Amino acid sequence: IERQLQALISNGEGAVNKEAFRQAVVNTLERRLFYIPSFKIYRGVAGLYDYGPPGCSVKSNILAFWRQHFVLEENMLEVDCPCVTPEVVLKASGHVEKFTDLMVKDEKTGTCYRADHLLKDFCNEKLQKDLTISSDKAAEIKHLLATLDDLSAEELGAKIKEFGIVAPDTKNPLSDPYPFNLMFQTSIGPSGSSTGYMRPETAQGIFVNFRDLYYYNGSKLPFAAAQIGQAFRNEISPRQGLLRVREFTLAEIEHFVDPEDKSHPKYSEVADLEFLMFPRQEQVSGQSAKRVRLGDTVSKGIVNNETLAYFIGRVYLFLTRLGIDKERLRFRQHLANEMAHYAADCWDAEIESSYGWIECVGIADRSAYDLRAHSEKSGVQLVAQEKYSEPKEVEKLVIAPVKKELGVAFKGSQKNVVEALEAMEEKEALEMKVTLESKGEVEFEVCTLGKTVTIKKNMVNIQKEKKKEHQRVFTPSVIEPSFGIGRIIYCLFEHAFYTRPSKAGDEQLNVFRFPPLVAPIKCTVFPLVQNQKYEEVAKFISKSLTAAGISHRIDITGTSIGKRYARTDELGVPFAITVDSTTSVTLRERDSKDQVRVDVEKAASVVKEVTEGQTTWADVWSTFPHQSSTATDD
Amino acid sequence: IERQLQALISNGEGAVNKEAFRQAVVNTLERRLFYIPSFKIYRGVAGLYDYGPPGCSVKSNILAFWRQHFVLEENMLEVDCPCVTPEVVLKASGHVEKFTDLMVKDEKTGTCYRADHLLKDFCNEKLQKDLTISSDKAAEIKHLLATLDDLSAEELGAKIKEFGIVAPDTKNPLSDPYPFNLMFQTSIGPSGSSTGYMRPETAQGIFVNFRDLYYYNGSKLPFAAAQIGQAFRNEISPRQGLLRVREFTLAEIEHFVDPEDKSHPKYSEVADLEFLMFPRQEQVSGQSAKRVRLGDTVSKGIVNNETLAYFIGRVYLFLTRLGIDKERLRFRQHLANEMAHYAADCWDAEIESSYGWIECVGIADRSAYDLRAHSEKSGVQLVAQEKYSEPKEVEKLVIAPVKKELGVAFKGSQKNVVEALEAMEEKEALEMKVTLESKGEVEFEVCTLGKTVTIKKNMVNIQKEKKKEHQRVFTPSVIEPSFGIGRIIYCLFEHAFYTRPSKAGDEQLNVFRFPPLVAPIKCTVFPLVQNQKYEEVAKFISKSLTAAGISHRIDITGTSIGKRYARTDELGVPFAITVDSTTSVTLRERDSKDQVRVDVEKAASVVKEVTEGQTTWADVWSTFPHQSSTATDD
Repeated sequence: IERQLQALISNGEGAVNKEAFRQAVVNTLERRLFYIPSFKIYRGVAGLYDYGPPGCSVKSNILAFWRQHFVLEENMLEVDCPCVTPEVVLKASGHVEKFTDLMVKDEKTGTCYRADHLLKDFCNEKLQKDLTISSDKAAEIKHLLATLDDLSAEELGAKIKEFGIVAPDTKNPLSDPYPFNLMFQTSIGPSGSSTGYMRPETAQGIFVNFRDLYYYNGSKLPFAAAQIGQAFRNEISPRQGLLRVREFTLAEIEHFVDPEDKSHPKYSEVADLEFLMFPRQEQVSGQSAKRVRLGDTVSKGIVNNETLAYFIGRVYLFLTRLGIDKERLRFRQHLANEMAHYAADCWDAEIESSYGWIECVGIADRSAYDLRAHSEKSGVQLVAQEKYSEPKEVEKLVIAPVKKELGVAFKGSQKNVVEALEAMEEKEALEMKVTLESKGEVEFEVCTLGKTVTIKKNMVNIQKEKKKEHQRVFTPSVIEPSFGIGRIIYCLFEHAFYTRPSKAGDEQLNVFRFPPLVAPIKCTVFPLVQNQKYEEVAKFISKSLTAAGISHRIDITGTSIGKRYARTDELGVPFAITVDSTTSVTLRERDSKDQVRVDVEKAASVVKEVTEGQTTWADVWSTFPHQSSTATDD
Repeated sequence: IERQLQALISNGEGAVNKEAFRQAVVNTLERRLFYIPSFKIYRGVAGLYDYGPPGCSVKSNILAFWRQHFVLEENMLEVDCPCVTPEVVLKASGHVEKFTDLMVKDEKTGTCYRADHLLKDFCNEKLQKDLTISSDKAAEIKHLLATLDDLSAEELGAKIKEFGIVAPDTKNPLSDPYPFNLMFQTSIGPSGSSTGYMRPETAQGIFVNFRDLYYYNGSKLPFAAAQIGQAFRNEISPRQGLLRVREFTLAEIEHFVDPEDKSHPKYSEVADLEFLMFPRQEQVSGQSAKRVRLGDTVSKGIVNNETLAYFIGRVYLFLTRLGIDKERLRFRQHLANEMAHYAADCWDAEIESSYGWIECVGIADRSAYDLRAHSEKSGVQLVAQEKYSEPKEVEKLVIAPVKKELGVAFKGSQKNVVEALEAMEEKEALEMKVTLESKGEVEFEVCTLGKTVTIKKNMVNIQKEKKKEHQRVFTPSVIEPSFGIGRIIYCLFEHAFYTRPSKAGDEQLNVFRFPPLVAPIKCTVFPLVQNQKYEEVAKFISKSLTAAGISHRIDITGTSIGKRYARTDELGVPFAITVDSTTSVTLRERDSKDQVRVDVEKAASVVKEVTEGQTTWADVWSTFPHQSSTATDD
């Protein structure tokens, strides 16, 4: 079977081959415990996966590199907030109201489905299998597929009715679509009265701490805060295996910046990078992603600002350093209908996998939305100040309610009216001024009274006045690169996977070409044959590797070296040391299968240097004597 | 105020001074953002804290060292499982039934309290403030305090009634105590029918994966699996600030071992360690913890086995390497009444803090309990095999139901009866055999039928038979070191904190004496005065530090160097580089305040070496020219 799969994988691009390729990767990943379906002995839970030993190791290597590449390099402020979150925070952020998917229920069994998934499946099947549909109808269905995410509950329901879509398992009729909140809900404390949720993202923990973090940073902008942690999403019916799960690790950065100055001091370091970008305009006009110079997209106004571009560049460097194939990585700009109304610009790092192009990192300029929302809800001002070098004269609108007149007119309700007048936006106040001057009075809604009152000219003075200001107070914009770590890892597994024939040519062997940075185990140590002398050498090398902090395994099973290499290649271990003498050993590189001879005493330090990037395999290859592969190769 | 606090802290041992010391530490920790009360702008949630930038850094340094010290050194299999856990798993583990605290409610307001807390508070106050109580009564109350954890709901309720304890806030009467489950409950998926909980510990994720992990390890024992992750505990009313929280990070090891051989190959590496141990016997006889040689406790049979002792030793090394004071660290054996019935032995690493001795690591030999529980519930055998070098003859009990007779007697229920007979434990079967032989029949309960049936002698053969066996199949024992990372961090903060007078003597300055391994920032870089040349040197050094992976900060504020040192000492930064020339710089060590001169080019590498432990400050001090402190000291 495996050979048949390989044949399918090695040529062609069709859906079947993608499926077969994915099966080969996923089989290897599960067989070697990169992943384990969670609670497997209890038949598991859809959308929950464990990282087994090599997967866990890859994950912690990636997170360590993320810390180095982002937090350390940019002096970010890392925080670590709880997953349990009180309702008030997620009401302010909008998640309680809007973090929903549309769901339909089998009217007889109560089984739940995502409404858009059912419609999507129907459309795809129609296009693929129904040869009788007209080209008009086909175009209509294609258009529907493209705009699926924009449909309201009513529109989705209407389409489901129109196409006669029924429950896939039972053929029973379906309910109308209704929103299902995707947060896991719980209760904090014993009383049952305090609702909480498992956070759907880590960002809110940063926003609510803005004031303290800004102060910690010496009250200076720009600065970035970062957080790595678990997030939760109670999917209606998880699909796409390891890509759409109910609990996942996010790594998020919130970069706070003056909305009037979104330049970045290190922008020039990334401006010359060239890679695949897919601006809105190209998507709309049906073109494909093109390789462009990042700096040009900024100068042409395609990317909104330098800081956003800086992070796009840094994300590109991060992903490719991990081993993501740069030909299967693109930065796609959100279309107007995908973006939240407050967002200034948004780009996704998408990685191509057997499931298609997968959003793995979102890089969004969210403007001042989040800080404003929490300022309003909490009553705590989340703002920054810019001190002027000399005071500036500014024109300011001053609303001065005349309390005496208001007291006479509204008695006990005076306070509410005063507050409502003072809270008017500039535009509203200016309109009131105009009306009062022309008509002498105006109808005015006081929300806190729940009614409209009549304001007369003598009750309020509205005036533009000149004032000296010593500082500007403003809500910073936030630029948010948000990394779905699990998705990056899965795509990396697909990009790193390949097969090659065994020496005898009788089977295909699996290899993960992880760079040493990512590899779960950096090195294996094999005594060539089971013998005490060799095992002692192996233990000596192992101790040196441990002391150097290099993760490794000794394999003293009696299997052939070829088999042991195959086993280690399948885990993506980049280097193997075969102990075949007591003075020097064979050091083999995984992908080239090249081998050199290194003194026993030097073996650990050579592996350390090439693993940590102080040297390259090419250097090692040119420094040490080559070893023919006859004795120890597969 | 701060000076008054300091005076209180520096002498004496009383409760007031401990409170004052704690206040000084906690003030510093919160002011410098080691911790932030979570969701502070919304007035927070009791028992939830964020790690701010320096706290987060300390935490990730400790976790990285934990991985090096345990996972890497011992070749453990690290896994990473979800927090969301289906009910069936936690039913098997016993958490659904037993993970509870006893709660009482204010009968009028419904406010909840922990019953034992109220009783404890009452007893403590009685002892401290009521000068009229007899010595008999005092002894009774002390005994009650000592045995508080053993009281049943009824006993607690009776005491509360007896003492007339009422709700502390309202003086209203209280309900009877009843168990409150401490797990955060939620619902998995949209149907509402699948109950889940946020895991109360990470261990269960390992147990359910035992079979795969054992296979991954080449079907060999012993091996250990490890997991770092969030755990949750919905406390009734959190107390003790940072020590008792509702969400926390655990690092757990499950070391699986043959119950017949609990030796450890590396035991000799720890046997000679000497530190404070507090065996059961000493606790019962009112003695205190004594400094003993670990190996002696094993040879005297005080610690149950070598593997348990090995981990006690490794935990000791881990904690003291972090900077825990070895005089305030003890290993306390559980008393018989503290231990679960299945546990073979259990020791807690307790660290002394201002709250008293705090359990920070539990090291328990849990025997085969957990694996057996999941085997039974899931129907999947979680066992290990030992192949005999040659087959062994063993006597085995064989239960052979006679299906024909059973079929006649029980018809459709035959299958249930057969299964129940085959599932009998050896003891039960032997008793049945005896009864059948003496009386000819026996009453037998068939759970799956929900009734008792009569088994006659001709319906089942029970026999001891000799068999050749090729392997032994057994459930491994598990030895579990479980680390409360947050508690370790908090205790470390207390142990690392001290104050010293400023140079002018007019104020007390706070210092955290973190070892470089733990320090949130390893080094600060200060240009002595604001000048472009110095700032360029500072930037050069900063770049070299970043490339070397050393976390650091540049401080270019114009404040005095003394103030800047004080600021950095309060964050526990071990080294400071002051740029006071363009060729060489001053390198200062935090605790000694000693300073040496180092070439600009060498500065980063010297800091790297002394930070990563390749060299010591003593070596640096003897290698480089000393710098008098006049120019740059505080």
